[in-house]
Amino acid sequence: MSAEAINDRVSLAGLEREDILKIADNAGLENAELYSRNIENYIGTVKVPVGIAGPLRVNGLFANGDFFVPMATTEAALVASYSRGSRCITAAGGCSTLLVKESVCRSPGFIFKDLSDAGRFVVWAQDQYKRFEDLTTGTSRHCRLMDINITIEGNHVYLGLNFSTGEAAGQNMVTIAAQAICDYIREQSPVIAKNIFVEANLSGDKKSSFLSFQTVRGKKVEAEARIPAKHVEKYLHTTPSVMCDYWRISSIGGSLSGTIGMQGHYANCLAAVYLATGQDVACVSESSVGVTRLELDDNGDLYASVSLPNLIVGTVGGGTGLPSQRACLNILKNAGADNSHAFAEILAALCLGGELSIIGAICAGDFTKAHRLLARGR
Amino acid sequence: MSAEAINDRVSLAGLEREDILKIADNAGLENAELYSRNIENYIGTVKVPVGIAGPLRVNGLFANGDFFVPMATTEAALVASYSRGSRCITAAGGCSTLLVKESVCRSPGFIFKDLSDAGRFVVWAQDQYKRFEDLTTGTSRHCRLMDINITIEGNHVYLGLNFSTGEAAGQNMVTIAAQAICDYIREQSPVIAKNIFVEANLSGDKKSSFLSFQTVRGKKVEAEARIPAKHVEKYLHTTPSVMCDYWRISSIGGSLSGTIGMQGHYANCLAAVYLATGQDVACVSESSVGVTRLELDDNGDLYASVSLPNLIVGTVGGGTGLPSQRACLNILKNAGADNSHAFAEILAALCLGGELSIIGAICAGDFTKAHRLLARGR
Amino acid sequence: MSAEAINDRVSLAGLEREDILKIADNAGLENAELYSRNIENYIGTVKVPVGIAGPLRVNGLFANGDFFVPMATTEAALVASYSRGSRCITAAGGCSTLLVKESVCRSPGFIFKDLSDAGRFVVWAQDQYKRFEDLTTGTSRHCRLMDINITIEGNHVYLGLNFSTGEAAGQNMVTIAAQAICDYIREQSPVIAKNIFVEANLSGDKKSSFLSFQTVRGKKVEAEARIPAKHVEKYLHTTPSVMCDYWRISSIGGSLSGTIGMQGHYANCLAAVYLATGQDVACVSESSVGVTRLELDDNGDLYASVSLPNLIVGTVGGGTGLPSQRACLNILKNAGADNSHAFAEILAALCLGGELSIIGAICAGDFTKAHRLLARGR
Amino acid sequence: MSAEAINDRVSLAGLEREDILKIADNAGLENAELYSRNIENYIGTVKVPVGIAGPLRVNGLFANGDFFVPMATTEAALVASYSRGSRCITAAGGCSTLLVKESVCRSPGFIFKDLSDAGRFVVWAQDQYKRFEDLTTGTSRHCRLMDINITIEGNHVYLGLNFSTGEAAGQNMVTIAAQAICDYIREQSPVIAKNIFVEANLSGDKKSSFLSFQTVRGKKVEAEARIPAKHVEKYLHTTPSVMCDYWRISSIGGSLSGTIGMQGHYANCLAAVYLATGQDVACVSESSVGVTRLELDDNGDLYASVSLPNLIVGTVGGGTGLPSQRACLNILKNAGADNSHAFAEILAALCLGGELSIIGAICAGDFTKAHRLLARGR
Repeated sequence: MSAEAINDRVSLAGLEREDILKIADNAGLENAELYSRNIENYIGTVKVPVGIAGPLRVNGLFANGDFFVPMATTEAALVASYSRGSRCITAAGGCSTLLVKESVCRSPGFIFKDLSDAGRFVVWAQDQYKRFEDLTTGTSRHCRLMDINITIEGNHVYLGLNFSTGEAAGQNMVTIAAQAICDYIREQSPVIAKNIFVEANLSGDKKSSFLSFQTVRGKKVEAEARIPAKHVEKYLHTTPSVMCDYWRISSIGGSLSGTIGMQGHYANCLAAVYLATGQDVACVSESSVGVTRLELDDNGDLYASVSLPNLIVGTVGGGTGLPSQRACLNILKNAGADNSHAFAEILAALCLGGELSIIGAICAGDFTKAHRLLARGR
Repeated sequence: MSAEAINDRVSLAGLEREDILKIADNAGLENAELYSRNIENYIGTVKVPVGIAGPLRVNGLFANGDFFVPMATTEAALVASYSRGSRCITAAGGCSTLLVKESVCRSPGFIFKDLSDAGRFVVWAQDQYKRFEDLTTGTSRHCRLMDINITIEGNHVYLGLNFSTGEAAGQNMVTIAAQAICDYIREQSPVIAKNIFVEANLSGDKKSSFLSFQTVRGKKVEAEARIPAKHVEKYLHTTPSVMCDYWRISSIGGSLSGTIGMQGHYANCLAAVYLATGQDVACVSESSVGVTRLELDDNGDLYASVSLPNLIVGTVGGGTGLPSQRACLNILKNAGADNSHAFAEILAALCLGGELSIIGAICAGDFTKAHRLLARGR
Repeated sequence: MSAEAINDRVSLAGLEREDILKIADNAGLENAELYSRNIENYIGTVKVPVGIAGPLRVNGLFANGDFFVPMATTEAALVASYSRGSRCITAAGGCSTLLVKESVCRSPGFIFKDLSDAGRFVVWAQDQYKRFEDLTTGTSRHCRLMDINITIEGNHVYLGLNFSTGEAAGQNMVTIAAQAICDYIREQSPVIAKNIFVEANLSGDKKSSFLSFQTVRGKKVEAEARIPAKHVEKYLHTTPSVMCDYWRISSIGGSLSGTIGMQGHYANCLAAVYLATGQDVACVSESSVGVTRLELDDNGDLYASVSLPNLIVGTVGGGTGLPSQRACLNILKNAGADNSHAFAEILAALCLGGELSIIGAICAGDFTKAHRLLARGR
Repeated sequence: MSAEAINDRVSLAGLEREDILKIADNAGLENAELYSRNIENYIGTVKVPVGIAGPLRVNGLFANGDFFVPMATTEAALVASYSRGSRCITAAGGCSTLLVKESVCRSPGFIFKDLSDAGRFVVWAQDQYKRFEDLTTGTSRHCRLMDINITIEGNHVYLGLNFSTGEAAGQNMVTIAAQAICDYIREQSPVIAKNIFVEANLSGDKKSSFLSFQTVRGKKVEAEARIPAKHVEKYLHTTPSVMCDYWRISSIGGSLSGTIGMQGHYANCLAAVYLATGQDVACVSESSVGVTRLELDDNGDLYASVSLPNLIVGTVGGGTGLPSQRACLNILKNAGADNSHAFAEILAALCLGGELSIIGAICAGDFTKAHRLLARGR
C-alpha cells in the first residue's frame, strides 16, 4: 500500500492524518507488502509491549529445559505474576508435561428432505471413510483425516471431521479438506442433500464448548508439579493447605457460574503468548478452558496440575512468520520455531505457573496489592 | 529499561541479540518508559497489522453515524469479511443498536466453620449494603456498587458484588473495591470467617460462563438489521431463505456442541478490535458469547440480530492510552475516545456484520474460496 | 369411570382384558372418581413398592427430629443405601439443614416488530411492577410476585416472573398468575406485541438449567454433617481420606462430562420420595442438580454438605391428596403433611445420606457387591 | 414381610397404623414377597393412576402401527395433552422414527502417583481392549463392550466403558462388567493405582450431561412428522407460522437459561411412561434432554422433529416384571413386552406428540385454560 493509498483511506474514512501516522509510523508505511498476506485494508500496525516470563523448567514429552516465554500484554502485573509462578515451579525442580492428543475439527452440515434420507445418507457416508482420507491428503500433505463422528438430528446430519494438521494450527487446512469432502459428497452421494454447508457449528471453532473440552481441539496437554511447602511459602507467601481451601471454593464457584471446566485465568497466559508469537488470538475463546487441580499431599506439600485440551497453536502459518512474532518464537528456541508440540507443552506449563501465582496471591492477600502498586495512576 | 538491561536479559535468558532487536527495534529500546505501567520484564513490542472495516452505519442509543473500525489481526480474509458485512448493513440503512445494561462483578468467597455460621453471616451482610456502597465510592469516584447476589453452598458463602465502572473496563477498579469490602468484613463481621478470598470464581472473570451470559459482564448490547433480499444477493451472493436454513442447523450445532449461547465467530471481531484499541485481549474469553438470530420476514427479507452481554471495554485504562492503541480509538472518533457506551454499540454492530458475512459465505460456497485465495502460499 | 367405560376403552385400544385387570384391580375400577382430577383416560393404577429409610436425624430451620422417609422405587438396594446413609448421619448427631430461599418462575415471551419496540416495552413494563403484584394476588391468595428479571434478545423480550407459592409446588398457580399478567399486557401495553406466549422456556420448567441452579427453582436447601472417622469406618467401611480423594475425582468427572453442578445421585432420592408423596415426578429433571462437597477436617473427620437449589415440592395439590400418597406424607408427620419447608429440608438431608452411602460404597468396593447381592436373579 | 414385621416397623418408626394400612392395603401385606427383589424395608405400595394416550401412529425402524401408551401421573391435563398430540400425528399419517444407536457407559476412575504413571497406564490399558471385551462377556451374555474413551486429567485417569445391554436398561449389568475390568486392572496392571473407583462420574449416570447428550446414553432415537396446516388448525387451534415463531423464542429461551439441548417438556412424557412400565424413574434426570425442531415448509405445513439421545429403557429387569408394570408394557404389545428398541421409538414419538400439543396450546392461548379447567378445585 502506497502513501497515496493511505491518503485515499484517510480521506475516505475521514481519518486524522496524525492518528494514521501513529499507527503507520515508519514500519507501517514501508511494510504494507510485508503484511499483505495477513490483512486487508492495511493502515499500519499496533504495537503491544512484550515482557518475558521465566525461567520455567519443563520436563516434558516434547519440551525439555528452562524456558523464557515472551508475553505481549498491556495489563500490568501479568508478566510479573507468570514469572513468579514459573520461578516457583523451577525451584521445585520443574513441571512434568504431556501432550496427550491432537486434532482439529470441521463439521459440515447437510439438510435432507426427511429423516429417512438422512439415515440413508449416513449409511452411505460411513462407507466412504477411505475416500475421505484420500481427498484430505490430496488437499495438503500435512493434513490427515483421523476420525469422523456423525450426528443425526431430524433431517439434519453433521459430519464431525477430525484432522491432524502438522506444525500448523490448521484452521485453513481443515476448511479446505472439508470442502473437498463436501464437493465429493455433492457429486457422488446417492442421497441428494437440500443444502450442504462446509461448517455447521458442531466443531467448537472460535468458542468455548463442552464438546472440545471433553475431547480435544488443537492439542490437549497436561502439566503437573509438586511444590514443597517451603517453596509455597517462599514464592507465594501462603501455605498448601490454604491454597487447597481456595481450590475447593473456587472450583465450586466455577461450577456455580456455569463455566466449562474449572480454572482460574488461562486466558491471560494464552492471550499474551498467542499474541506475541503470531497465533490466532481469537482462539483464546476456545483455548481458555480446562481443569486446574490442587491437592495437599501426605507430606504436606502441594500437588498442582492443569489440563488444557484446546490449545490451537502452530509454528508455521498465520502470523508466525511476521518479523516480531517470529523473533518471539525464536526466544523459545526450537520449542517455538519448529516444534508445535513442545510449544504447546510450554504453554501448559506457563498456565500452571499462572494458576499457582494467582491462587497464591489471593490466598496471601497480595492480589489486590499487586494490582494497586503496579497499576497506580490508573 | 536501558540498553544494558536489555543486554543483561539477553545473557540471562540466553536470547539471541538478533531476535531481541526484531522485537525491540527503535521503538522498543526507546520506549521502555512508555510501557512501564503496562508490562514487566519489557523487551520490546510485537507489531500486529491493522486494517479498517467499514463503512458501518449504526443507529444506536449511543453510537450514531458511519464508522470505520480498526481491526488488528494476522488472519487473512478477516478484515475483508467484516468490511463486506458492514457495507451490506450500511446499504440496508444501517443497524439499530441498544446498550441494555452494564455491570462488572467481583465475587469474594468466605469459608466458615459451619452452615450455621454461614447463615448468620449472610443475615449480617444483607444489612451492610449501604456501608458497602460507601466503601466502594471511597475507592474510586468512578466505581459504584449496583447490586449484591449472595450464594450459600454449605459453609461457603460468595458475595456477587456488581459494580458500574464509568469509562473504564474496570477490572482493577472492582478488585480494589471488593478488597475494601473484604477488609471491612474481616474487621467488623460478628461471624468470624476461616478464610476470606477477594475473588472466588463466581464472577465469570476471564472465562465464558452461563452466569455472565444470562446477566451481564461489562456491557450488554443488542444490534439488529433488516436486510432486503436484493442486498443479500448483491453483497452475500445467497438468499435470506438459505441463510435461515443455515441459522437453524448451526444454532442446533452450537447447542449440540455445548456452547454458551448460539453464534458464529464473535471472537474474531472482538479479538481484532480489542487488540487494536488497547482492551484486555484475554477478555475475548468471556466476551465471545451471545445469540445471533436470523429470520425470514413476511416480505422475504432477512431479519438479523446479535445480542452480546459480556463486552468488557473501556476508553480509559489498560492499553487504551498507548500511542498506536489511542490512535485506533481516535479512528472511531468520539465513540472510541471518550464514550465506552458508543464503542460497545459499534462492536455489536460489527459483530452483526461479521455474522452476516460468514453465514453468507458459507451459504454461497464462498467460505473456503475466500480462505484459499487470501491465504494462498500458506 | 364405569366398568362399561373400561370395556369401551379395552375395545378401542385393542387392550387385553387380562392386562386391564392387573392395572385396574379392585382399586382401579372403584376409584375412577377418586383420580378424576389427576388424570384423563383412566384405566387403573400402577403399584410401586414403598420402603422406608431412616432413622434420619435432622437439625434444621424447619425440620427437627428423627425421621423415617418413605421411598417408592423398583430399584433394589436403593432404600437400603439411603437407610445406611441416614443411620450414619444420625449416629454422628444428625445433620444441619437450612432452607435458604424459595421461588417458582414463569417466563412469558413477547415478540415485537423490532428492537426499538422491545426497548420501549421494557421501559413500560418496568413501571408496572405494582400492578403485576396485584394481578398475581388476584389469582390466588397463596401466590405472590417476588421479583422480575427482564431479558431482551433482539426483538424478543422475556419476563422472568418469580413467585412464592405457599405450601403448593405451585406450577399451575404461577401459570395462572402469569396468564393474568400477559392478559393485562395484551390489553394495556402501549407497545403492541406481535406474539405473546405465557411461557417461553426461560424458566427452567421440567429441565435442568444453569439458570435455576444458580438461583432457585422451588426451594433451595443446604444440608451439612460432620462424620467422625470412626463412624465412617463403622457405617461406610472406608476412611474420610479416601472419600475425599473420590470427591475430587468425581467432581472433576462431573465437570468433564458437562453436568450442571457436581453430585452423585440426587435423582434416586428425589424420584423415590417424590413418587411416594405425590409430587410431580417429572420435576426430578430439574430438581436433581446441586453441589455435594466432602472435606477432610483438621481432626481427620469428614465434613460433608449438599446444596439443592431446585426442590419442587408441596404438601398440597398435585397427587399429595391421594390416599396412599397422603399416607406417605403422614409418615413424615407434620414435616410432610403441612410443612413444605420442613419437607424440603428432609429431602436435602436424605440426599446427603445417599451421597455418603454411595461414595462410601464405591470407596469400600461395596458398590458392585450390593447390586450383585440384592439384584440377583436379574 | 409378615404382619408382625409391619407392626414392628410401625412401632419403630412411630408410624400410625392407619397410614400404614393405606399404603399397605391388601396388596401390600400379601405382596411383600412379590416386591422383595425390588425394595428393602417394604411397607406397602403407592398407587399412581394410569391413563392411556393415543392412538399414536408410528412408522419406525422397529415400531410400526398404532399404539396406545399407558402414562402414570398425578398431574391433570397431562394425558389429555399427549393424547391430543398423538391424534394430531396420527391424522397426519403418523411419524417416522429411527433408533440411531445405543450404549450405556460406566466410567471407572484411577488415581496414580503422578502424570507419568497415568500416561504409562493409559498406554497399557489401550492394549487390553480384547481382554476387557472377554471380561465383559464373562459377566453376562447380554453385555458387550463396544468402545472405550480414555480421559487423562493430571494424575487421574477415567476409562469411559461403553456397553450394549440387550433388552435391559442395563445399569446393573454395566456396573458388574466394569467391576470385572477394574478387578483385572488391580491384579494385572504394571502401573499401580493409588485408588480404583468403579464409577467416577464421567458416565452421565442419573444426571443430565453434555457428554451423554452429544453421544448416547441408553438409546438415541429420532422422530419426525410433517403436519399439514389444516391439521395444525383442527387439532392445535393455531398455525404452523406461529408455532415456528414460538420455536425460535423458546429455543433461544432454553439457550439463555443454560439447558442441555432445546426442548419443551420431554420429562412429562418420560416420567409418566417410565413409571407405568417399571423403568427406573430416576433416569428421567438424564433422559429428559434432546432437541425439538419446528420448521415451516415450502407448502406452509409444519415440519417437526425430536431427537432423544438418552433413553434408558428396557423390557426386562428393574420393575418391568411386576404385575401392574408388566400389564402396562403389554398394552404396548410386542413393542413393550419384548422389544426395547420399538419401545424407545414409541417414547420418542410420544414426546413429539407432547411437544406439538404443548406448543400448540401455548400458541393458541389454551395452555392456561387447560390447566385451569382440569385442575379446578386445587
